[in-house]
Amino acid sequence: MDKIGSFQYHIDTRLVDYNGQLSLPMLANQLILSASNHALTRGFGFGEMQGHNSTWVLSRLVVELDTFPRLDDSLTIRTWVEEVGRLFTNRCFVLENAAGQTIGYARSIWAAIDVETRKPIDLSQLTDLSNYVHDAPCPIAKPGKVQSAEAHTTGELYTVRYSDLDINGHLTSYKYVEHMLNLFDLEWHQTHTIKRFEIAYMAEGRYGMQLSIHKKEIAPEQYVLSICGADGKAICRAAIHWATK
Amino acid sequence: MDKIGSFQYHIDTRLVDYNGQLSLPMLANQLILSASNHALTRGFGFGEMQGHNSTWVLSRLVVELDTFPRLDDSLTIRTWVEEVGRLFTNRCFVLENAAGQTIGYARSIWAAIDVETRKPIDLSQLTDLSNYVHDAPCPIAKPGKVQSAEAHTTGELYTVRYSDLDINGHLTSYKYVEHMLNLFDLEWHQTHTIKRFEIAYMAEGRYGMQLSIHKKEIAPEQYVLSICGADGKAICRAAIHWATK
Repeated sequence: MDKIGSFQYHIDTRLVDYNGQLSLPMLANQLILSASNHALTRGFGFGEMQGHNSTWVLSRLVVELDTFPRLDDSLTIRTWVEEVGRLFTNRCFVLENAAGQTIGYARSIWAAIDVETRKPIDLSQLTDLSNYVHDAPCPIAKPGKVQSAEAHTTGELYTVRYSDLDINGHLTSYKYVEHMLNLFDLEWHQTHTIKRFEIAYMAEGRYGMQLSIHKKEIAPEQYVLSICGADGKAICRAAIHWATK
Repeated sequence: MDKIGSFQYHIDTRLVDYNGQLSLPMLANQLILSASNHALTRGFGFGEMQGHNSTWVLSRLVVELDTFPRLDDSLTIRTWVEEVGRLFTNRCFVLENAAGQTIGYARSIWAAIDVETRKPIDLSQLTDLSNYVHDAPCPIAKPGKVQSAEAHTTGELYTVRYSDLDINGHLTSYKYVEHMLNLFDLEWHQTHTIKRFEIAYMAEGRYGMQLSIHKKEIAPEQYVLSICGADGKAICRAAIHWATK
């Protein structure tokens, strides 16, 4: 099977925001969905991992887009495994519009953990994974260290609800993005577009957790955000570069 | 073109809740999406209405399900226009699993309004709509009057955020359902399933509105819910019949 998986999506009303364009949380979700489907059909999907008592955990995601697809546009996501280390594997994505033009790229870093011990497992044992490594170009900066936003800021409080949970009972990956973007008001969303978004998942959000969500401007149109648990420790950090529309 | 439109969906991770089954908010969204696509290809979709300076507004939605589709199941939604009145049109839905078995039904009531005056328009002028009326069976009770939940209950406060908005800047239809279901705790969701859900949309939720969300038990496993604006007036009411799993 081809090392690169290709998945086509129609941007329907579920996926667009007030601006009529694919929302970032839904884009994050499409990327994760594409990664899952790529892995599924190549022998190292979530189901296959379950058979080995392990599961994939998303650690980092970074996205850069020139333009966001709009309502009724077609979006093609191509994804492949770039590298397999002992504890982490890197996966790349290229995003294309209906005309086949590249509109953006994304990178992600994944670990696999034992579902009982929650400890990372050695990925070099997964031959199905290593066999699919491919060196297609993904010309965006790799995820780096994200600055803390939680020091000296007052977070907005949020309690994890039923609708936030995925099938594993954890705060769904794209919901972190949604809660962070909600700290920017509507006028900001109407006048700005996201050029680069980077997120580091550090610990699992669970039902009933009292979260505080922090935002800090570090340069014009550049923000860092943190989601912290009740103990004040960050479970997730992100960085957003905006541009004026 | 066939009077009945048929739309097939794959239940992916975006659409399931913690229980691994299609969530009610996402089901509501799939029904609305199916209605939109049915109308689009028959000459009375949202785009067509825009050309006449008008738009569709969902007034009522009622759903009854025997079983909810689960992750990776296929769901087919068939939908048709049952009746066209002067101010309202009724649309029916039947839900089928991959084996072609009926797993539920839904009914909806829609009005069309002038986008500027926000006043209802006369639907009998829409010949494209009337020509598609069909009398397939939809054996569930029509939407009725939903009791008020807001009197003598303390609502939970919620402010409408960026992620709640649709392309028209209104609280998205399925988000009302999501915010209502969040009033039931996780244990309830784990031990109960929805048999019938009925919702009445009464006024538009807008960005920044301070909502209060009310819940009232009217019989064992039967609840009514209301979402009210800052003035205490309901913008939406719903009734849920649950069953113990």
